[in-house]
Amino acid sequence: MPLINNIKVQDVRFPTSLELDGSDAVNVDPDYSAAYLMVTADNGEVGHGLVFSCGRGNEVIAKAIESYGQLLAGRELDDLLSDLGAASKLLVHDSQMRWLGPEKGVSHMAAGAVINALWDMAARRAGKPLWRYLADLPPEKIVDAIDFTHISDALTPQEALEILQGGQRGKEERIRSLEEDGYPAYTTSPGWLGYTDEKVVRLSKEAVDNGFDLIKLKVGGDIDSDRRRLKIVREAVGENVKVAIDANQRWDVPDAIEWLQQLSEFNPWWIEEATSTDDVLGHATIRKAVSPMKVATGEAVHNRIIFKQLLQAEAIDVLQIDSTRVAGVNENLANLLLAKKFGIPVCPHAGGVGLCELVQHFSFFDYAAVSGSLENRYIEYVDHLHEHFAEPVVIRNARYQAPKKPGIGAEMHADSRTRWSFPEGSGWQEVAGQAAVTFN
Amino acid sequence: MPLINNIKVQDVRFPTSLELDGSDAVNVDPDYSAAYLMVTADNGEVGHGLVFSCGRGNEVIAKAIESYGQLLAGRELDDLLSDLGAASKLLVHDSQMRWLGPEKGVSHMAAGAVINALWDMAARRAGKPLWRYLADLPPEKIVDAIDFTHISDALTPQEALEILQGGQRGKEERIRSLEEDGYPAYTTSPGWLGYTDEKVVRLSKEAVDNGFDLIKLKVGGDIDSDRRRLKIVREAVGENVKVAIDANQRWDVPDAIEWLQQLSEFNPWWIEEATSTDDVLGHATIRKAVSPMKVATGEAVHNRIIFKQLLQAEAIDVLQIDSTRVAGVNENLANLLLAKKFGIPVCPHAGGVGLCELVQHFSFFDYAAVSGSLENRYIEYVDHLHEHFAEPVVIRNARYQAPKKPGIGAEMHADSRTRWSFPEGSGWQEVAGQAAVTFN
Repeated sequence: MPLINNIKVQDVRFPTSLELDGSDAVNVDPDYSAAYLMVTADNGEVGHGLVFSCGRGNEVIAKAIESYGQLLAGRELDDLLSDLGAASKLLVHDSQMRWLGPEKGVSHMAAGAVINALWDMAARRAGKPLWRYLADLPPEKIVDAIDFTHISDALTPQEALEILQGGQRGKEERIRSLEEDGYPAYTTSPGWLGYTDEKVVRLSKEAVDNGFDLIKLKVGGDIDSDRRRLKIVREAVGENVKVAIDANQRWDVPDAIEWLQQLSEFNPWWIEEATSTDDVLGHATIRKAVSPMKVATGEAVHNRIIFKQLLQAEAIDVLQIDSTRVAGVNENLANLLLAKKFGIPVCPHAGGVGLCELVQHFSFFDYAAVSGSLENRYIEYVDHLHEHFAEPVVIRNARYQAPKKPGIGAEMHADSRTRWSFPEGSGWQEVAGQAAVTFN
Repeated sequence: MPLINNIKVQDVRFPTSLELDGSDAVNVDPDYSAAYLMVTADNGEVGHGLVFSCGRGNEVIAKAIESYGQLLAGRELDDLLSDLGAASKLLVHDSQMRWLGPEKGVSHMAAGAVINALWDMAARRAGKPLWRYLADLPPEKIVDAIDFTHISDALTPQEALEILQGGQRGKEERIRSLEEDGYPAYTTSPGWLGYTDEKVVRLSKEAVDNGFDLIKLKVGGDIDSDRRRLKIVREAVGENVKVAIDANQRWDVPDAIEWLQQLSEFNPWWIEEATSTDDVLGHATIRKAVSPMKVATGEAVHNRIIFKQLLQAEAIDVLQIDSTRVAGVNENLANLLLAKKFGIPVCPHAGGVGLCELVQHFSFFDYAAVSGSLENRYIEYVDHLHEHFAEPVVIRNARYQAPKKPGIGAEMHADSRTRWSFPEGSGWQEVAGQAAVTFN
């Protein structure tokens, strides 16, 4: 029986703050980073995982991944892979580590990355990309992987099973359509706050020319430039293109309502992160005030318990899962099923580094075997840093093309990881001393 | 002008899992630990801070403290101490580190410890214990220290100022009474799940003999032993002693309601952490179902935004702040003012290691200058590990006696920190190989 070795962790960072790619009202100078890990077994099997971060602090996530790795080292791989629900609980509910969250922040993201590396090993064993591996699992196995702790008042295992059994009808046909046509994408590339008006307009037109019918702009810097940018973009793309806006938690509840009333004439399709994603009641208040504008959130929602409440409180129209914020595949399965139970579409958050490569699998699986619907559903797409991955996302006709390689999509090229290892990598030596670059 | 040096961090752990002190339905084998730091300046001034944890993972908090320390190193101490509100935001809202929470979990606790060390330096400069330092500050300075981000819909700076101005009336008299008679305590020492019935009864009687009129028992292991323990304790202490119970988030919402209905005949004074402290709506549902039993929570509430919602949703009767869970003194000032605004008593969580020493200052300040009331208010007391601190808490007639030494109460004896440094300390060498002891 193969045994788990010590986990290998790397602190990989890219100096994106040298451009203003990725700049918004809160994240003004991110250096897109990955706390990266490889789980290996003594028989040579390997699984990859990562947590995305914005630069400083990536070393803290890396340290947490090392600590969770110690909970796995020496265990039998087959035992872990045969019950990934139990493997997840082993980490998330560790009686001492739990205090660090519980189930939130650095410790939760780190546990999720280790759990994801185990799913990567399981999918590789099966020779399937994660989305297809999940779609081919019997509904009972999906239910077994989910931790219903603190959500059973909203979703019981029996309800989850019935949703998944319903998702079996027409599954093969939907899988074929995903493999042929892919899944709809929207793009945030035009809309960063750091960009000039000219660049925003040019990139918005290019996005529409490339077939995108939903684009997203960052807002929340100041109201006048938000109105100006929305106006020129709306003029550039016309009324038939959906324009979403994203405030990255910049506002308090009263500010959000006042600000959004001044933007409503430009007909934004959704407002994303209008306020703190901890604020379930605040999101519900804002949604009532700005309807019919849709309210979206989720990239910073730290676990299924907050998503449960956002749904129970009718606080959101769009649920945005993130692939490295929560406790891995298991918890995102819970999030997909909660969304289906409450009839809310999932439009995953992506961008950063690796997030597109990972999160696409959840939407492909959702269409294949959970919601069975593409209505009002898109995966976020940002054209950053894909070249560093073993299987970069492919966008054709503004749609994500189905990933084909076995695994969860987290594998980054070894030479990229070496070159951008922080702080010793050769890439960092070359940019040393330049402005706004992260430190450790 | 004195400049901040690099921060010194120690991973201090005590092998409490060798006893079953501190055992509950979730924390079955804690090794009470402190991620400990000292901020020093080049003029020799020093401030102490710590984050409490349960053992494994303490190294992750220590790493996060080091990272936040790098944001302070080389800055002018006087600038930081003259505006502790700005100093807090410098850490909590760092544009890259923020992604690690935001404002929750490991990163938030670590930022809080660094912020607390700065308050320790400020109070030492003034020659006052923290509670007295805060009580003597003008209301405007308290308001300046508070971050109203994402709570202004519930508490505005103007409302906070008016509350604090009202707290000035009779303040000197209340300060005298605190210095003479102290502040009411309750004790959790009798009620750990790991204790035998005989020990629980004996310790409960001792507590009442020592003047405590509120004791707390851990519940949530299994319903039959919970009923048995509550029955024998109620028989031992009589009807006039308040008995609170604490489930440490063990239950889902439906389980909590069913379980508590089976315990209600023993008239528990409050139920603490009936479910996840992320679950604002769940707490509100439970409170409606179990009234008039009080609902208490807070030791795991990760920031002011969750406390705000617990109050807005009328989900709690008792608000339990913790001294090392949130972003330091600044955020607990916000929590005290939110509680006052909504008319809810604050009964701080304590125990662990150092939590009694730190948190007592907030209740003393609350009575002196915020709520001005002792009604239904107690500070938790657990008799563990006080001997390691420069100023151990003093309990007389079941009341905390006013701390007198300048600072926030976090200073731990250097020899204790050395002996119990993990894993190299001599204490750990002596217990090496014994059961249930933490690893790094």
